[in-house]
Amino acid sequence: MRLSKLYMPTLREDPQDAEIASHKFLLRAGMIRKSASGVYTYLPLGYRAIKKIENIVREEMDNAGAMEILMSAIQPAEIWKESGRWEKFGPEMFKLRDRNDREFCLGPTAEEYFTTLVRDEVKSYKDLPLNLYQIQTKYRDEKRPRFGINRAREFLMKDAYTFDTNPETLHEAYMNMYRAYEKIFDRLHLDYKIVEGDNGAMGGSGSHEFIALSETGEGVIVYSENGKFGATEEKAPVEYILPEEQERKDLEKVHTPGAKTIEEVSNFLNVDKKRCAKAVDLVMAGERVIVFIPGDRELNMAKLISYTGVAEHDIEMMSEEDIKAIGSFAGYTGPIGLDARIIVDKSITEINNLVVGANEEEYHYINANYGRDFEGEVVEDLLLVEEGDKVPGTDDEYKFARGIEVGNIFKLGTKYSKSLNATYLDENGKANYFYMGSYGVGVTRSVTAVIEQNHDDNGIIWPIAVAPYEAIVTILNIKDDKQVELGEKIYEELKSKGIEVLLDDRKERAGVKFKDRDLIGIPLRITCGKKSSDGLVEYSTRREMENSEISYEDAINNILEEVSNK
Amino acid sequence: MRLSKLYMPTLREDPQDAEIASHKFLLRAGMIRKSASGVYTYLPLGYRAIKKIENIVREEMDNAGAMEILMSAIQPAEIWKESGRWEKFGPEMFKLRDRNDREFCLGPTAEEYFTTLVRDEVKSYKDLPLNLYQIQTKYRDEKRPRFGINRAREFLMKDAYTFDTNPETLHEAYMNMYRAYEKIFDRLHLDYKIVEGDNGAMGGSGSHEFIALSETGEGVIVYSENGKFGATEEKAPVEYILPEEQERKDLEKVHTPGAKTIEEVSNFLNVDKKRCAKAVDLVMAGERVIVFIPGDRELNMAKLISYTGVAEHDIEMMSEEDIKAIGSFAGYTGPIGLDARIIVDKSITEINNLVVGANEEEYHYINANYGRDFEGEVVEDLLLVEEGDKVPGTDDEYKFARGIEVGNIFKLGTKYSKSLNATYLDENGKANYFYMGSYGVGVTRSVTAVIEQNHDDNGIIWPIAVAPYEAIVTILNIKDDKQVELGEKIYEELKSKGIEVLLDDRKERAGVKFKDRDLIGIPLRITCGKKSSDGLVEYSTRREMENSEISYEDAINNILEEVSNK
Repeated sequence: MRLSKLYMPTLREDPQDAEIASHKFLLRAGMIRKSASGVYTYLPLGYRAIKKIENIVREEMDNAGAMEILMSAIQPAEIWKESGRWEKFGPEMFKLRDRNDREFCLGPTAEEYFTTLVRDEVKSYKDLPLNLYQIQTKYRDEKRPRFGINRAREFLMKDAYTFDTNPETLHEAYMNMYRAYEKIFDRLHLDYKIVEGDNGAMGGSGSHEFIALSETGEGVIVYSENGKFGATEEKAPVEYILPEEQERKDLEKVHTPGAKTIEEVSNFLNVDKKRCAKAVDLVMAGERVIVFIPGDRELNMAKLISYTGVAEHDIEMMSEEDIKAIGSFAGYTGPIGLDARIIVDKSITEINNLVVGANEEEYHYINANYGRDFEGEVVEDLLLVEEGDKVPGTDDEYKFARGIEVGNIFKLGTKYSKSLNATYLDENGKANYFYMGSYGVGVTRSVTAVIEQNHDDNGIIWPIAVAPYEAIVTILNIKDDKQVELGEKIYEELKSKGIEVLLDDRKERAGVKFKDRDLIGIPLRITCGKKSSDGLVEYSTRREMENSEISYEDAINNILEEVSNK
Repeated sequence: MRLSKLYMPTLREDPQDAEIASHKFLLRAGMIRKSASGVYTYLPLGYRAIKKIENIVREEMDNAGAMEILMSAIQPAEIWKESGRWEKFGPEMFKLRDRNDREFCLGPTAEEYFTTLVRDEVKSYKDLPLNLYQIQTKYRDEKRPRFGINRAREFLMKDAYTFDTNPETLHEAYMNMYRAYEKIFDRLHLDYKIVEGDNGAMGGSGSHEFIALSETGEGVIVYSENGKFGATEEKAPVEYILPEEQERKDLEKVHTPGAKTIEEVSNFLNVDKKRCAKAVDLVMAGERVIVFIPGDRELNMAKLISYTGVAEHDIEMMSEEDIKAIGSFAGYTGPIGLDARIIVDKSITEINNLVVGANEEEYHYINANYGRDFEGEVVEDLLLVEEGDKVPGTDDEYKFARGIEVGNIFKLGTKYSKSLNATYLDENGKANYFYMGSYGVGVTRSVTAVIEQNHDDNGIIWPIAVAPYEAIVTILNIKDDKQVELGEKIYEELKSKGIEVLLDDRKERAGVKFKDRDLIGIPLRITCGKKSSDGLVEYSTRREMENSEISYEDAINNILEEVSNK
């Protein structure tokens, strides 16, 4: 493709609202354009990179025995209501009605849809196992779309679903996808970690996330130094170190004027924060809930959601009225004599002589003990992991890293087949629920992960495997016939050898051409300059940026070799 | 791919609601499934055929210098309101609101969207001409979706848009697309005609439609025997043959009891139907309109729409109240003394001594003459073409055919650039409107056209170029080691030569395998039967269905040759 013809509206200036490198460079390189909040157009160069990734995903899915289909992007509301997720997704789901007032959504994922497809078609165990996937535009009406196509409201995703007869073959299908994903992200040249994930809205019995490491990532993961353990921040188990054991003392109400926060109470009473119970006052799906955890820790909302089954958008902090309604006072909420659902982290049952709010202004209890003075629902682990925590059962401290979630795999078990009544007949003619798994790759998001890991101040540094074009031939001075002649010759020869190549044949200054070339990040570069008449060119790679003056034949051979090793 | 693994839920019985061959066979062959009215899932074999067509379209668009992008399927309402089409599309457009109550539609087409994209990016004549396209899911909330993916509410379409500086280069861009479309439909092996189209909702100054001939098509086209002229039924010009001229007689009101229809009036008064004015009573965008045409013809609604600019969904027949309100009586509407907008076909001004309704029960006027007795807006041609009509300016009678519209090209001129204020700066720094064209190919609809033209009673007969797989190897008896061995060998060898091949390795009776093979329509076939031990197979093509017993090497060579000639 000739740059003189290519639609590549590059920008000299950094766009104002672009906070991360991938967003900035995709805009500046003329690869994407915003058309509404969180909604983007993919321009020629950007769309080529996307299709490269799409094809790598497709190849590895096909190699793994999955079969590609395409379901509609609009999904009937009924199946979401059947599974109970119509409400659960809440405002994150785009909803619409057709001319006959039938309700649809724009699919944010497709567990229900694939389950009902297979339910209506697959009758016998003989047709199993089954692995179906699609590469499709998905929709999530994010509250805060940001970072360009990293967290957009419309995005390209590969989603696959497996159907099995039992947990063992489901596990095989799951591990098959696990390995396929390793191949995919290896081929994208991503630096990534595989961590245990949170099941979130998916339900089911196990999951892993594929996290491309990046300082700009929104997800935090933890892992052990020896590399065996990895998990999302949300999922990471916490082994809480209890304070020293004390003999149980008598419950006593004390005046604590001005001491509301854990910090203040701990200082005022001179009691270890670990012994000061922290109350988190919530309204969950309309129910008033107080969660107690040790004062030195933070509540892990994902663990609470997983325990209660209440969706995130159905959880809010209590208002002053709510706190009054449960017979308490803001800042002094405690578990004794409270008219609310009480949930406690297991550690709270093991720490004696706790300081807790007295549900009365300026008063706390000291020496509160679980079982004797108060009770509640005990949950094994509700704590958010922190620096310094140890990987449970080891002496390794957790390491922390940020990353971008580019893939996830879930064992769904029979969650969806049960709620949607999807069965097959086994060898004995008995109806059984399918064991299912679901597997996602963020195609457009992977583009951003690649760029976050591969850029410098001047622009993108595409790995060859996902570059929109593999090589670029720059004619320095378009008025010099020798340069034009050689440039065109190299361009044609590379094309004839199957190389995806750009020719910069624009009437622009050399500086502009070099700047654009760096910005759009084409990996392999030939410059035809003054020595064109001697058949000499400058060869460089975008990554090294070091020019070497060599014969044009050698430059072509370099490119052929690099591409064959991609 | 092995049929033992392939997800191909074939059906033995014809689905009840499938009226045409493509719908029936796509369902029966397990290639598509309905998930809501006019909304379909494409299953593995069906989706492969769709992608074949998609790739042919992509290659020819790229060859023609067009550049692929992808815009979002959800489009902001504002741009449609700016162009005035938000209302015009009416209930055919799926509409929705996001969580911030911002309005969107699911794009039925993208003239507005591409225009605003280019408006915001392309500043200079130096960046023109430009040809951008996308292959994307489109949405039209059809009143009566039918014929499976032939007239669906969600469908795959290639839409391209060109931007030029003047009508001449627009014409070049238009003809470039015209030729690209010929290549596309030739490669799809379609029997098609190119006809002048109706501009319909697109506006603009010229259009052609690419119509795949098929008895089951919803569109009617007319053409001249010598092949030079072709048009849609809606667009075909009519040269009306006037009745013999008479001397003007005096207007006279006559009693016509029981004579309401043209037939009845003509018989009762013994007057040639041509001389009996037919009134069509309409309410167009709230305005009462009566159209008069000669009694022996039908009104061409598309021509009326093109003249008035009122959208189809804004037109309805008058109610009895409406007719009363304009001072008339149902069945006796005439142009004399009428309180309504009157539109007449030009012929009405040229026929003297007309019979017209007297706007009074059981009365007509005879000898009404335009200009003397009544007036109205005169439109050159409002008539629907009929068998026997001549191609204007020739002695050729129109031929009629039915077909499926698989492609269309439109010269839009400055319609959208003006309404959306999209300009570039010319050589003199002056702002000018873009000259635009738009160009569509129905990708999923083309699949149905291919099948309508290529099937028999037993199933589909895919042309090799668009078949989901090019060849199929059938192992007759899976318990016979020799057959299995040879079948596997041929399968591997064909795969290694790049042939897209299926292996029927299922534990099924031969009859089932043959029936499925015919149904799914794989073009090239090898059967490994009893003579496998001698290296002999049966070779046949789906089209000829004639088996020849030859060596397996010859069969492989036949396939390689057929595929290379596809």
